[in-house]
Amino acid sequence: MRSSITIRSACQRFFDVTLFSAQLRILLTTLIASVVTMPTVNAQQSQYQINRVEPASWWIGMKNPEVQLMVHGINIAELSPKISYPGISITHVHRSDNPNYLFIDLKIADQAKPGALTIQFLQASNKTKNSTAKVASSIKFELQTRRAGSAQRKGFTPSDAIYLLMPDRFANGDTGNDNQHNYSDKLARDVPGGRHGGDLQGMRQHLNYIAKMGFTMVWPTPLVENAQEINSYHGYAATDFYRIDPRFGSNRDYQQFVQEAKAKNIGVIQDVVLNHIGSNHWWMKDLPSKDWLNFPKQYTETNHIRSTLQDTHAAQIDKQKFADGWFVKTMPDLNQRNPFLTKYLIQNSLWWIEFADLSGLRTDTYSYSDKTFLASWSQRVMEEYPQFNIVGEEWSMNPNIVAYWQRGKQNHDGYRSSVPSLMDFATYQALHASLVGGYGKDVDMMSMYETIANDFIYADPDNLTIFESNHDTPRIFSALNEDVDLNKLAFTMLATLRGIPQMFYGAEVLMTSPKQRDDGKVRGDFPGGWEGDEVNAFTGKNLSAAQQDMQNFVTRLFNWRKTASAIHHGKLLHFIPENNCYVYFRSDAKQKVMVIINRNEKALQLDLSRFNEALQGSQRAIEILNNRALVLDKTLHVNAKSAMILELH
Amino acid sequence: MRSSITIRSACQRFFDVTLFSAQLRILLTTLIASVVTMPTVNAQQSQYQINRVEPASWWIGMKNPEVQLMVHGINIAELSPKISYPGISITHVHRSDNPNYLFIDLKIADQAKPGALTIQFLQASNKTKNSTAKVASSIKFELQTRRAGSAQRKGFTPSDAIYLLMPDRFANGDTGNDNQHNYSDKLARDVPGGRHGGDLQGMRQHLNYIAKMGFTMVWPTPLVENAQEINSYHGYAATDFYRIDPRFGSNRDYQQFVQEAKAKNIGVIQDVVLNHIGSNHWWMKDLPSKDWLNFPKQYTETNHIRSTLQDTHAAQIDKQKFADGWFVKTMPDLNQRNPFLTKYLIQNSLWWIEFADLSGLRTDTYSYSDKTFLASWSQRVMEEYPQFNIVGEEWSMNPNIVAYWQRGKQNHDGYRSSVPSLMDFATYQALHASLVGGYGKDVDMMSMYETIANDFIYADPDNLTIFESNHDTPRIFSALNEDVDLNKLAFTMLATLRGIPQMFYGAEVLMTSPKQRDDGKVRGDFPGGWEGDEVNAFTGKNLSAAQQDMQNFVTRLFNWRKTASAIHHGKLLHFIPENNCYVYFRSDAKQKVMVIINRNEKALQLDLSRFNEALQGSQRAIEILNNRALVLDKTLHVNAKSAMILELH
Repeated sequence: MRSSITIRSACQRFFDVTLFSAQLRILLTTLIASVVTMPTVNAQQSQYQINRVEPASWWIGMKNPEVQLMVHGINIAELSPKISYPGISITHVHRSDNPNYLFIDLKIADQAKPGALTIQFLQASNKTKNSTAKVASSIKFELQTRRAGSAQRKGFTPSDAIYLLMPDRFANGDTGNDNQHNYSDKLARDVPGGRHGGDLQGMRQHLNYIAKMGFTMVWPTPLVENAQEINSYHGYAATDFYRIDPRFGSNRDYQQFVQEAKAKNIGVIQDVVLNHIGSNHWWMKDLPSKDWLNFPKQYTETNHIRSTLQDTHAAQIDKQKFADGWFVKTMPDLNQRNPFLTKYLIQNSLWWIEFADLSGLRTDTYSYSDKTFLASWSQRVMEEYPQFNIVGEEWSMNPNIVAYWQRGKQNHDGYRSSVPSLMDFATYQALHASLVGGYGKDVDMMSMYETIANDFIYADPDNLTIFESNHDTPRIFSALNEDVDLNKLAFTMLATLRGIPQMFYGAEVLMTSPKQRDDGKVRGDFPGGWEGDEVNAFTGKNLSAAQQDMQNFVTRLFNWRKTASAIHHGKLLHFIPENNCYVYFRSDAKQKVMVIINRNEKALQLDLSRFNEALQGSQRAIEILNNRALVLDKTLHVNAKSAMILELH
Repeated sequence: MRSSITIRSACQRFFDVTLFSAQLRILLTTLIASVVTMPTVNAQQSQYQINRVEPASWWIGMKNPEVQLMVHGINIAELSPKISYPGISITHVHRSDNPNYLFIDLKIADQAKPGALTIQFLQASNKTKNSTAKVASSIKFELQTRRAGSAQRKGFTPSDAIYLLMPDRFANGDTGNDNQHNYSDKLARDVPGGRHGGDLQGMRQHLNYIAKMGFTMVWPTPLVENAQEINSYHGYAATDFYRIDPRFGSNRDYQQFVQEAKAKNIGVIQDVVLNHIGSNHWWMKDLPSKDWLNFPKQYTETNHIRSTLQDTHAAQIDKQKFADGWFVKTMPDLNQRNPFLTKYLIQNSLWWIEFADLSGLRTDTYSYSDKTFLASWSQRVMEEYPQFNIVGEEWSMNPNIVAYWQRGKQNHDGYRSSVPSLMDFATYQALHASLVGGYGKDVDMMSMYETIANDFIYADPDNLTIFESNHDTPRIFSALNEDVDLNKLAFTMLATLRGIPQMFYGAEVLMTSPKQRDDGKVRGDFPGGWEGDEVNAFTGKNLSAAQQDMQNFVTRLFNWRKTASAIHHGKLLHFIPENNCYVYFRSDAKQKVMVIINRNEKALQLDLSRFNEALQGSQRAIEILNNRALVLDKTLHVNAKSAMILELH
């Protein structure tokens, strides 16, 4: 996620105030402590009020049996925690430079029984050895049983297709939650950067729509609380890492959404942000330690030059500015080198996987976090869930930079990542370059060919996530000059090239945007998601013929893809484009598929003899996109600007 | 080397005739055999006339003591060779499918004495066992002593700077050799693709000029015989691998040129072509075997898609067309998979290194040869001369493709090359993109920064050969819109970035060309190289002030570079360009250099505090380009569009 200049300058005005001094923060904390509520905290009436414990629950039987609780309350560092619960022990208690925090390491025996346990916080009545300890405060903590097979959960794979949606912009299923008492960013559908009301209820209502189109994964942009004054809709400025934003629904609603999706064979990929928080995050009022943030005193913006991390010649100051610099003033940059924060972020990811029953993570602004931390984070998640998947967003058109972060890559500096998938920005660029030119390239299918030819630099190109657009880019239909034929070529490549395809909501009904980045407009409201919408893409009401046609095309394409083992796991064999026509084959033991992408403005008679190596004598084919049987002759007629998918027999 | 479309189509008309049938070729060979002369062949009057033996000499004490002679003469495969010379033995005699060739493996003992030895070719008088053998023919072969230290010769290194020149276009030192009786491509100075008369004598006469400018290596484009009807001047269509083209001089002249250059501390890099020959090569009249050429029957052009060699998805037909396809009809493509040809080409390279006393090889159209052969070829050369250097031409802007061919690269497919240097086309592209834009980039020093940032993908970036232009590209001054200031920025980068710098002859006096590739015009005559030239860059006569200024600039720059250990072997530390100004440092234990490339159209006050990591408290500096002492303050004034090289103290 990148924030636009517009957002940046607007927010600057609002949030300079968040950088006030530490003393003021503590004072304010004292004042507001009593109004902050935490459901699982059972604070006693004493001078030691406990405001937070995170996480407030954990599971028995995790591979790593330890969990570290962050506890926040005025002066609680003076207290000593105590637990009396069979199978649970406190192994360490840590204190930071802030007396309002305690970090408690728990060890959970596999034999422990689920239940609510109490953590008591003891205060020595005086400093002599014989003094008796007094219970100054206590909290409840939930010990839970894992779902069967949780550790072996399968993440998304190349057999899947991902539907990316923005919860605020997809469907407003519950107008009752649009505005919330304690949240200042109110419903404002006419403001591009305002909240439009979409929610989990809306997403639940339309799971059938997503499933019917052939998608098997849904990636909603972040759902956690963003109690920011403006632009809170996008979700990338968390103010509570453990809570679904109430304008989207509750934590329980989220769980139900995932369960209902799974019942329809759709997995859910959670969008996590490790790099930064929102300036209204509760930590900002009383930072857990002085080194919790990067550049805490002097606002310093990231230079966005991600190559500094691989570059053997890069200056230290540039590396630091890249990884530690802030995106915008409203997004304080986390210092993941702090060991408590390292554990906090790792546990938060594990917590959501386990709590919500996830099928994957998408990690925002991946390389902007500390790289040593990222190695630990990805390693820990994948150790806990060996068959899981994580896709990192490394927004670089340079495939060497992207390849660096993928699991299995032998890097020049020995760096080892455990992230199985990365967003494939080079292929995204090639999709546009090959169809309409740009990025310094003429319209030429060679752009895609040469990009795929670079696969040798990746440890696992099949596990890259390819996409036609996302919430940070222009919409593909607009980028392709609203040319329906080119749009179909793009989607055919998306569905048949190697990798895991991801589509942005609304692309199936030709949603448009400005050609230059414009977040608010790219993230338009899905037609039919709001009561009274003139056009309803869920029901088909008032869709234009072109929209219906595209929706049918996407449905046909991705439903076929669901069954196409050669596309999921088969070898890719491609031929140098000739006459601006790109031909490639996917094949496994069961299936052989020929894909023809003719970007030529004229129809072609394709000489099939050139493909003997792949055809291997096939004489008949089914053309998938129109379910037509074909006899393969010496030449094949291919219409101008059209794609063919042939299942060969 | 690439041939332009113009050359290609012109040549096509002339040389279709070269593809006549094998039968016709043999018939013609019989007719012309008597007119072909070979100085070292002592053919006896018999029905077995020996036309060629290659090589005709070899050395005692090579690391590999074996050499394979190719012997050509009508029906000589019927004969058996015999040698009686102490320390020399014939280990194997091979015959191909052409009865006119013998391949004789000799083993040369380290104790053998130099001298001329005779190889007799014996004919069994009849087929009974008791028959006595008759000497049907014999040849002389020279056994020589190596120069002292030959095996330990040092190739060019980053301490060197290379002057690339085209012998035909540099200086005509001997007008007597301009036209030669047996060569149809005559002197035609007014024809861009004609012979202009330059020669080894001209190169010898101007070695002082090259040395004085600070260059320590000269790379002449190929000097071997090119008995082609047209375009013979460029040298990339060999018709005899062992003979200097007489229009340039003799083999002995070449040896003298190298010796005189060495006396002036200039090494010579020979330009070798392993991929193809000229259509008038003597082999073409009687191919050593049926599989000597690729696509011998049906003319097939290369697709130039070099990525097919790395690409894990590439089709076999595309790979084959790339490596086996011809450049043009006048350049038959060699099949280096033939084991006799493998040995022939390896030996030919070793022969020239040893014979001419070379300091390096530049290998034309590197990846177009068979890649298994290239691994053997480069390994054998580097085994024989472990401190030597070879620079391969892999004309790709994709650094992954270039990196694949460098010694030490851990490749995905296990391929191991032994070539220490490659031409750095990505940096060439970035030089232009950063100064004048292009290749889809705006004018922005980030182009160079990001290109250098990619160094982590190379096994040895310091040993890449960087260049401002060459004989196949537009001239840099023209590419930079004849902007002298930008030209100086380009040369400053060339002389101070990592790598081995190479300059194209005439760039020092601002020679121009069309901005699009135009071989004949890019390869213009050097002013002063011809008697009566109005302008003489050697003497300075009639040079414009700008030309003189540039010549002085180049001289100052490269003479300083000769002494600058930090540039030769020092670490490179660079900073993200700000305000279109790129700052980097080179440093070793002895020297610290700061380079400032200000592409900004305005003067800048550079805040030096940003560079503390590199400056490390330096307070004084010498500005190299104008020999000015500076005191370093908080800021440094940098003129618009100007470069500074500061030696820090």
